[in-house]
Amino acid sequence: MINFQSDYLEGCHPKILDKLIDTNFRQSSGYGNDEYSKNAIEKIKKACKKEDIDVHFLVGGTQTNSIVIASVLRPHQGVVSATSGHIATHEAGAIEATGHQVLTLPSEDGKIQAEQVKEMYDEHWNNPMHESAVQPGMVYISNPTENGTLYSKAELESLSKVCRELGLPLFLDGARLGYALTSPNNDLTLEDIANLCDVFYIGGTKCGALFGEAVVICSDPLKRDFRYIMKQRGGLLAKGRLLGIQFAVLFEDDLYFDICGSAVNYALQLKHAFEEKGIKLYGESFTNQQFPILTNTQLDYLSKKYGFEFWSKINERETVVRFCTSWATKKEDIDALIDDIRLM
Amino acid sequence: MINFQSDYLEGCHPKILDKLIDTNFRQSSGYGNDEYSKNAIEKIKKACKKEDIDVHFLVGGTQTNSIVIASVLRPHQGVVSATSGHIATHEAGAIEATGHQVLTLPSEDGKIQAEQVKEMYDEHWNNPMHESAVQPGMVYISNPTENGTLYSKAELESLSKVCRELGLPLFLDGARLGYALTSPNNDLTLEDIANLCDVFYIGGTKCGALFGEAVVICSDPLKRDFRYIMKQRGGLLAKGRLLGIQFAVLFEDDLYFDICGSAVNYALQLKHAFEEKGIKLYGESFTNQQFPILTNTQLDYLSKKYGFEFWSKINERETVVRFCTSWATKKEDIDALIDDIRLM
Amino acid sequence: MINFQSDYLEGCHPKILDKLIDTNFRQSSGYGNDEYSKNAIEKIKKACKKEDIDVHFLVGGTQTNSIVIASVLRPHQGVVSATSGHIATHEAGAIEATGHQVLTLPSEDGKIQAEQVKEMYDEHWNNPMHESAVQPGMVYISNPTENGTLYSKAELESLSKVCRELGLPLFLDGARLGYALTSPNNDLTLEDIANLCDVFYIGGTKCGALFGEAVVICSDPLKRDFRYIMKQRGGLLAKGRLLGIQFAVLFEDDLYFDICGSAVNYALQLKHAFEEKGIKLYGESFTNQQFPILTNTQLDYLSKKYGFEFWSKINERETVVRFCTSWATKKEDIDALIDDIRLM
Amino acid sequence: MINFQSDYLEGCHPKILDKLIDTNFRQSSGYGNDEYSKNAIEKIKKACKKEDIDVHFLVGGTQTNSIVIASVLRPHQGVVSATSGHIATHEAGAIEATGHQVLTLPSEDGKIQAEQVKEMYDEHWNNPMHESAVQPGMVYISNPTENGTLYSKAELESLSKVCRELGLPLFLDGARLGYALTSPNNDLTLEDIANLCDVFYIGGTKCGALFGEAVVICSDPLKRDFRYIMKQRGGLLAKGRLLGIQFAVLFEDDLYFDICGSAVNYALQLKHAFEEKGIKLYGESFTNQQFPILTNTQLDYLSKKYGFEFWSKINERETVVRFCTSWATKKEDIDALIDDIRLM
Repeated sequence: MINFQSDYLEGCHPKILDKLIDTNFRQSSGYGNDEYSKNAIEKIKKACKKEDIDVHFLVGGTQTNSIVIASVLRPHQGVVSATSGHIATHEAGAIEATGHQVLTLPSEDGKIQAEQVKEMYDEHWNNPMHESAVQPGMVYISNPTENGTLYSKAELESLSKVCRELGLPLFLDGARLGYALTSPNNDLTLEDIANLCDVFYIGGTKCGALFGEAVVICSDPLKRDFRYIMKQRGGLLAKGRLLGIQFAVLFEDDLYFDICGSAVNYALQLKHAFEEKGIKLYGESFTNQQFPILTNTQLDYLSKKYGFEFWSKINERETVVRFCTSWATKKEDIDALIDDIRLM
Repeated sequence: MINFQSDYLEGCHPKILDKLIDTNFRQSSGYGNDEYSKNAIEKIKKACKKEDIDVHFLVGGTQTNSIVIASVLRPHQGVVSATSGHIATHEAGAIEATGHQVLTLPSEDGKIQAEQVKEMYDEHWNNPMHESAVQPGMVYISNPTENGTLYSKAELESLSKVCRELGLPLFLDGARLGYALTSPNNDLTLEDIANLCDVFYIGGTKCGALFGEAVVICSDPLKRDFRYIMKQRGGLLAKGRLLGIQFAVLFEDDLYFDICGSAVNYALQLKHAFEEKGIKLYGESFTNQQFPILTNTQLDYLSKKYGFEFWSKINERETVVRFCTSWATKKEDIDALIDDIRLM
Repeated sequence: MINFQSDYLEGCHPKILDKLIDTNFRQSSGYGNDEYSKNAIEKIKKACKKEDIDVHFLVGGTQTNSIVIASVLRPHQGVVSATSGHIATHEAGAIEATGHQVLTLPSEDGKIQAEQVKEMYDEHWNNPMHESAVQPGMVYISNPTENGTLYSKAELESLSKVCRELGLPLFLDGARLGYALTSPNNDLTLEDIANLCDVFYIGGTKCGALFGEAVVICSDPLKRDFRYIMKQRGGLLAKGRLLGIQFAVLFEDDLYFDICGSAVNYALQLKHAFEEKGIKLYGESFTNQQFPILTNTQLDYLSKKYGFEFWSKINERETVVRFCTSWATKKEDIDALIDDIRLM
Repeated sequence: MINFQSDYLEGCHPKILDKLIDTNFRQSSGYGNDEYSKNAIEKIKKACKKEDIDVHFLVGGTQTNSIVIASVLRPHQGVVSATSGHIATHEAGAIEATGHQVLTLPSEDGKIQAEQVKEMYDEHWNNPMHESAVQPGMVYISNPTENGTLYSKAELESLSKVCRELGLPLFLDGARLGYALTSPNNDLTLEDIANLCDVFYIGGTKCGALFGEAVVICSDPLKRDFRYIMKQRGGLLAKGRLLGIQFAVLFEDDLYFDICGSAVNYALQLKHAFEEKGIKLYGESFTNQQFPILTNTQLDYLSKKYGFEFWSKINERETVVRFCTSWATKKEDIDALIDDIRLM
């Protein structure tokens, strides 16, 4: 069985393991106050081409989303998200557990647009009973989205402009950011993101690390006391060095971009193979996740040799599934799968 | 500089790294549904000599404490703890952030006794206005305590008996459990703990793992839906295999006990050296943490070559400090330190 | 200006004021432990024809909803509600502030049906990743709904049956319950509601009291420690007698039903007048709220003499508005309004 | 039985009932947007001699404390209070339920002093591990305190000065404020309090109203969006007029001060009688609460004719009890009690 079910099926890029071995016996301070973390922070600042940002390392995505959101909102505020947003659907009520509602905006492609945010904001404030409703307090997006789609630079600029006009901090969930930035359809840089967002994170768990997400806080008011909230919500790793080491490796010689770029490349080969075969894709993903719509026959056929994820049922005879590539995807496995797609 | 500041200064026991390398390219399911985790769970069940327990792996101690406590209590209940308990002092309000008060009991040695729990319970229920007070809902202890002291089997039996009579689940924080179980002064086994506690955890972070705590739920009513709360509070690791692999290694051939036992042994050599020198120890710790009371001169002298932690100031000329040993402590470093203690 | 904007525009039924005056100088215990409250509880038990229920008095609706829901759910559970449910839209995130998500079901008429609950439940539990989703933990309905519609006995029986099969406590928000029970289209009794729901409340604020909601807990497991959670969430009134006195008056000689019945009767006269005039009503309300769809001209015309509430805009030329009647509605005002409807 | 158990044993001052009757049939907007509330706000502003304050009306004390505190703190912050503070002991964990710890300072007399706050603040920030502790975020005091003691103007000025230097908003719980301001030992005015505190409240429930607390927000940053949090936590009364009416009556012709002054006067007569009899008082209260230390014989003797509250047991033969006076205390009852004290 060759598995394309997710991008966290294996351990981590071997260079990370090498570094863990190299450093294993060196002593360092706990809780992120170590040299490895400081080094990784410097590298991330350099990659963002910004010095006046705060960088913190957390372990996983749900943890990161709830810590960032809890640190930004006042009690009566909610976070605006696409209905398909990870925080709205896949985090077991983590945001509500911090006391806040997720205010959802409908979205076909997983993205939300500046006008939608403006409209929700106006509707709230124009409601004479607005004090009985949850006040929009920040905006959450992910790039790529849950559907694998990408924000264009123009879209992110519009969203950022509206958010700043309305006083709503913009938070970008970059659990798979590497796969966005290395997509041929992307026109955003890390620098753009750091300029346009108030806070975002660079995903490690799904992009070659054992685990880890690097939170970048760009907006000064959001920087204050962030580590307290990390600690309070169980996000301050005792051996913080492990996060520093991993991100230092990933941001050494562009490794992060190389491995994500390679995964995207493989995914686009798959996309091409499905399209050539006349198989439609659900949404237009130019990232490491592809969502072919398979007939029952095709589903059975591919299931014999390959693992992939059930996404949603379209009707009695068609199903959307997800194939993911990653740093660990092997050329031979992609080639085999493409051959099988052609043959089926 | 030779560092004894904490037991999480280095990476992890080399056997864990070996296993991470071995398994790195194997594919597995996420979120703890992998073979490594299943294997580790079996080993822990065997070590506890109990089959009807649930085992879950979490990343760190504060996370574990808040998830366990949030899963047990109803909204109006609080958790009983010694005033010096980790949850009462060192977790940035993590328990309060889940909506619950920590009900503290005074303690000289970091332990709480059955009678204290009974008395607090009676005082609550005998108060005609008890509905205006926080209801005791569970009991939290740690073993070893923050002070390095140990519960005897008799003490834990009494506590367990009272807790069961009063309907208060008993939760044991075992962040350093290995150092308790391998202390010459200990008369408890893992099996005893599993029989006497309703839920406890076996610490990995401070006992040789990169990170990780193994929660053992012994009481049936506490088992239900635990994984939801793990997920909701950011504790369900995507690559759950990393936790499974680590605990499987630690519970292979008693490695956990070997490395903790060795650390305790070194710590007791230190204890002996301090005592021989006429240096008093703060509390009676027979575990991997030792708390000598140093004069200013002694403090200065040892600070030149050794790292250790400031604990508390006794008066103008005496200070309590902490020396920790761990799986990574080297004989030559202990010998050097002992020599220096003798010479000072 | 004659006002029909809501059913809480005036003080309270004069008999309540009389009783407040009569009792004003009598001394009583605080926090609901008074004779007036005990008396009111007895009357409510009698009206429900059930002895084994707990009755508690709270001040307002949002408070009651959040206290009941917080007392029922475990942290990872959410409350199922119609998208138009009061808790989903008009309570400023009160439920989320207790840590819980509102799981919404679409509804045209404000009601939810047994099949919808079953379907949501099954979808949750059939999802292999259900631990990443919020678990349905209870069901919230209101009767009448926000739209003024009513549950039939058959509908409530089905809902109750499904909820009991699935282990989901059923909670009925009766902020306007009096207007449901006295509607000619109603076939439910208080006794039915007490038999079919696990917890519900009998609204006072909108049904003739100065303020107050009587929570009735029918299901034994939900009774435990309810007063703690009332106190914790600021719902235990110091002079609890005020609530006891009001409900004792309302449940003396069927006053509650008389005043609500009169209000419904007036509302149905309005309904009839609108229909005769060819004005459509939004939804089919047979309770004290009527939702005519007015043209701009009609809106302007009626606005000159009458106060009513904007509900929603249908299109450029039609608007839904709400007219409410209450215990305080005067025959002469209804007659005047009906004349004006006919003339416009 | 003549009852002195608390200051909320009766209904309310008759002038309030008169006004409720007068206004009962007048229609007004809900949720505090009514003319009565506006009028009451103007009167309170005038009494405080300040225009730039926000005034909001809430129903009860625990509700008010939790709403104010939740609106001020960020998630990682706690509220500093005396160990005997109402929020620390008598509110069933209401503050923790909003996610915040109560940071307690020891106090003999129920008051906390400026130096204590400074010391706690410094200790927090000087701790290198401060991010693992709860950050002091605001200061809570009550005047009079739980013990009936009063802050002098000099004490409140010092506290206010330190709080402003440290950036800690100062919140004064004035549930019994009327009894402080009318004590012969008081040298504070409402104006002083409004100048020295960032937020405080003027208690109604215990000072002659049926219920109600008037929150005064003096500090601009704390004003924002307060009504949302009132709504979210169930504190926005539908018939907000009831609160407006009550406070308008209490602040008409100094009624509030007259009735509280009369109660204090009666209490001081009691104090004098106890002292003449050689009965010691627990603490020095010059307000409406008196805490005599009675022998068992005295306790039995007085219990036959009078109701009063058990406070605490000193030893086997002595008990502290509480006698409260209020707006409703009758001269004849005080005279009878004083006679009995003399005779016993």
